[in-house]
Amino acid sequence: MTLRPLGDRVVIKKVEAEETTKSGIVLPGAAKEKPQIAEVIAVGPGGFQNGVEVKMELKVGDKVIFSKYSGNEVKVDGIEYTILKQEDVLAIVE
Amino acid sequence: MTLRPLGDRVVIKKVEAEETTKSGIVLPGAAKEKPQIAEVIAVGPGGFQNGVEVKMELKVGDKVIFSKYSGNEVKVDGIEYTILKQEDVLAIVE
Amino acid sequence: MTLRPLGDRVVIKKVEAEETTKSGIVLPGAAKEKPQIAEVIAVGPGGFQNGVEVKMELKVGDKVIFSKYSGNEVKVDGIEYTILKQEDVLAIVE
Amino acid sequence: MTLRPLGDRVVIKKVEAEETTKSGIVLPGAAKEKPQIAEVIAVGPGGFQNGVEVKMELKVGDKVIFSKYSGNEVKVDGIEYTILKQEDVLAIVE
Amino acid sequence: MTLRPLGDRVVIKKVEAEETTKSGIVLPGAAKEKPQIAEVIAVGPGGFQNGVEVKMELKVGDKVIFSKYSGNEVKVDGIEYTILKQEDVLAIVE
Amino acid sequence: MTLRPLGDRVVIKKVEAEETTKSGIVLPGAAKEKPQIAEVIAVGPGGFQNGVEVKMELKVGDKVIFSKYSGNEVKVDGIEYTILKQEDVLAIVE
Amino acid sequence: MTLRPLGDRVVIKKVEAEETTKSGIVLPGAAKEKPQIAEVIAVGPGGFQNGVEVKMELKVGDKVIFSKYSGNEVKVDGIEYTILKQEDVLAIVE
Repeated sequence: MTLRPLGDRVVIKKVEAEETTKSGIVLPGAAKEKPQIAEVIAVGPGGFQNGVEVKMELKVGDKVIFSKYSGNEVKVDGIEYTILKQEDVLAIVE
Repeated sequence: MTLRPLGDRVVIKKVEAEETTKSGIVLPGAAKEKPQIAEVIAVGPGGFQNGVEVKMELKVGDKVIFSKYSGNEVKVDGIEYTILKQEDVLAIVE
Repeated sequence: MTLRPLGDRVVIKKVEAEETTKSGIVLPGAAKEKPQIAEVIAVGPGGFQNGVEVKMELKVGDKVIFSKYSGNEVKVDGIEYTILKQEDVLAIVE
Repeated sequence: MTLRPLGDRVVIKKVEAEETTKSGIVLPGAAKEKPQIAEVIAVGPGGFQNGVEVKMELKVGDKVIFSKYSGNEVKVDGIEYTILKQEDVLAIVE
Repeated sequence: MTLRPLGDRVVIKKVEAEETTKSGIVLPGAAKEKPQIAEVIAVGPGGFQNGVEVKMELKVGDKVIFSKYSGNEVKVDGIEYTILKQEDVLAIVE
Repeated sequence: MTLRPLGDRVVIKKVEAEETTKSGIVLPGAAKEKPQIAEVIAVGPGGFQNGVEVKMELKVGDKVIFSKYSGNEVKVDGIEYTILKQEDVLAIVE
Repeated sequence: MTLRPLGDRVVIKKVEAEETTKSGIVLPGAAKEKPQIAEVIAVGPGGFQNGVEVKMELKVGDKVIFSKYSGNEVKVDGIEYTILKQEDVLAIVE
């Protein structure tokens, strides 16, 4: 079962906290804040959104940082994903 | 008695919770949160909305994920539907 | 005495609650919520609204569902009407 | 002393409550709500407002219904008027 | 010392309350509300504001009514002025 | 060390309260409100802001009045400046 | 591990408080407010954002002042960065 995002949305899956620590990436703030690093799992087709053409720049496999207040969380087959618009992705981590 | 959505709206019907569990799809959050998986029942004609042309990409029968804070609920002939704009549909589940 | 709506507005008259029950249409929510099913009584001319042309798709006699938080209520000759913009009408009931 | 409204504004004068009752028009709500029926006293020139051309459709003498939360009240020579934009006029009463 | 307003702003000076009463103009509301009648003292050049051309229709000496919640108050050489955008002027009093 | 504002921003330095009193300019309001008269210290290049071309009309040395709720305060080399958009400058004092 | 900002975003790193004091730059306000001076570490490609082309004017190494309420903070390899849109950068410090 897969998720196919609409428009300029992407589906991302958070990188596990352990993995995050190992790679030396830690996000500041309260201990309960979830990490904001995630991997891109699926990319929408882009196209016209509110009359403005959006070109998708992200691709499956990109590691990204996103605002923790963006997007919608959903669990499919026991795995948690976040669906958000490409413009809410802040940066690619390389 | 049927619902014919106007403009860029679609009518969706939530997939029953039991069915949701069976298919392995569970949505996180408080136990009282309703599932956000639904089936598309009717699709509006699209066309110009606020001066911007909207092309309908959803079709009847699509299984979709939508934000639980989107749309309006209505009960017709004893069945609950949600009417929402296509842009509030997050992803198609396949 | 009649109401002639301006611009992209329509005048609708709620279908009586009894009638609603008879036709099998019930709206969920608190018992005090008024039914959201109404009949279109008058349709504005449409035309340019905020620089955007609006084409009226509703016609007198249509049965519609509308958001209960939309529009303005007014009583004329003892009858209650709601005046709202066409874009706040969610769907046509057939 | 007269009021000449600017842009797409109109000056209206509320129809007296007594007159309102006589004509069979009553507005629902708390007893203290002022009637929303008024007569158009002066019409602005229209023209470009925020880059969008507004054509005035109202004329002096029209009886109109307006949202009670719209416009600004002013008293000139002892008479109360409301100045509001044409788009805040809901319908013409005929 | 003079004020030269920028863009589509005008500088206005409130007409004294006494003068207001004499001319028969009184504004309703709490006794502490300041009169909203003022004289235009200076007019900005207009021109493009947010990409939209604004043509100044007011001229020095016009008596105007403005919304009391509009504009910024400033005292220069002991005299109080209000600086506001032309679109916040409701009507000209003649 | 100098500040070079970006886009349609200007850097201004408040005129000292003493100097303000001497020149006869006093701003009304609570005693703790800071004077809103300032001198322009640096002017950004203007250009396209949100797709709209902004032409800078202010120049270094202009005395201006600005809304006290506009802009960001910053202290450089012990001197306090305010950085704000040109559109938040209300008028030039001459 | 590096950050590659998307669209019209830049990655900046705050200049240490000590260094700030040494260079004579202090920001006013509560003692707990973090300094708003930062160095540009990475610059996004710009391009069309919401249908409007954004040209990047900042370059790596620029010292900038930014609004403390702008952007998102992130810690990578133990170093804190802020990711914000170029339009939220107020001025370049030279």
